[in-house]
Amino acid sequence: MPGSGKGVVSGVARGLGFKLIRMGDVIRDEARQRNADIGETAIKLREEYGKFVVAERCVEKILKMQVAKNDDLYLIEGIRSPFEVEIFKKKFPNFKVIAVHSKPATRLERLKKRMRADDFSEESQFRIRDDRELNFGIGNVIATSDYVVVNEGSVKKFKNVVRSILQNEMRI
Amino acid sequence: MPGSGKGVVSGVARGLGFKLIRMGDVIRDEARQRNADIGETAIKLREEYGKFVVAERCVEKILKMQVAKNDDLYLIEGIRSPFEVEIFKKKFPNFKVIAVHSKPATRLERLKKRMRADDFSEESQFRIRDDRELNFGIGNVIATSDYVVVNEGSVKKFKNVVRSILQNEMRI
Repeated sequence: MPGSGKGVVSGVARGLGFKLIRMGDVIRDEARQRNADIGETAIKLREEYGKFVVAERCVEKILKMQVAKNDDLYLIEGIRSPFEVEIFKKKFPNFKVIAVHSKPATRLERLKKRMRADDFSEESQFRIRDDRELNFGIGNVIATSDYVVVNEGSVKKFKNVVRSILQNEMRI
Repeated sequence: MPGSGKGVVSGVARGLGFKLIRMGDVIRDEARQRNADIGETAIKLREEYGKFVVAERCVEKILKMQVAKNDDLYLIEGIRSPFEVEIFKKKFPNFKVIAVHSKPATRLERLKKRMRADDFSEESQFRIRDDRELNFGIGNVIATSDYVVVNEGSVKKFKNVVRSILQNEMRI
């Protein structure tokens, strides 16, 4: 969910040698090309090319990067819908889902501090953005994820939990 | 989600003096009266009386139990939809949501061992039951919950985390 701290997971993964694929990059690139709002583009892209478009473009990216290395490690950041999970599961047999959770009050505070182009300070806008994510089905992804990491206390502790999960998966 | 271990949370809450309200009891009582399947009854009850019916019956139960004690502690077990959360939030200002998470593989194993009337051993049935819960909107409840407790390792550790959350909330 917005403001939960998924970016921290990506940072830890990178440190362990994972290659980072950000689903948001597909949308951000497209939004820049269209000169349109990121949130709107996320919805429109799916309307125009189907609900699988962002996942499919990520799979293409990974297949291009892989060349001949089948044991590469990839972290895909920003999965939102169960349809995307299905695609990745089909393509990559060892695919696992890690969800990051923070309580709404914590996420709102973080977003207020961050104020990126697609963030905002108002509580009503926070609710609207939450609903947008939930409409993609992100709740179902979290409910059926392989791991949930709670990001409430210290960043150091959060990073340690994430690192142990990723290291554990690297051994499989 | 089924098999995640929400019953353990109820047990800890009871030990701390919480009164337990099980949403499933409303459905189980109704299913017994109708001589019908529990899962079916859960859906039919909502079709007949609206999506708020189970939550409303729980609110009635609590109001009857309360009498004059406004500082009573209640744990409502088995919330499934965001509409139910809305109702409880409106009625009880200090209402908080605790979600319990276990990975699908763990939940399937537990359900196989448990085999209650509304559980089952087959993986396809597991998926059907998961989807039934997800269709109620349980994913959205988890995604926007105040706490998520992961139930994967030892029961003792799980209980300790739950206890500290409940004790923390009791002080507010």
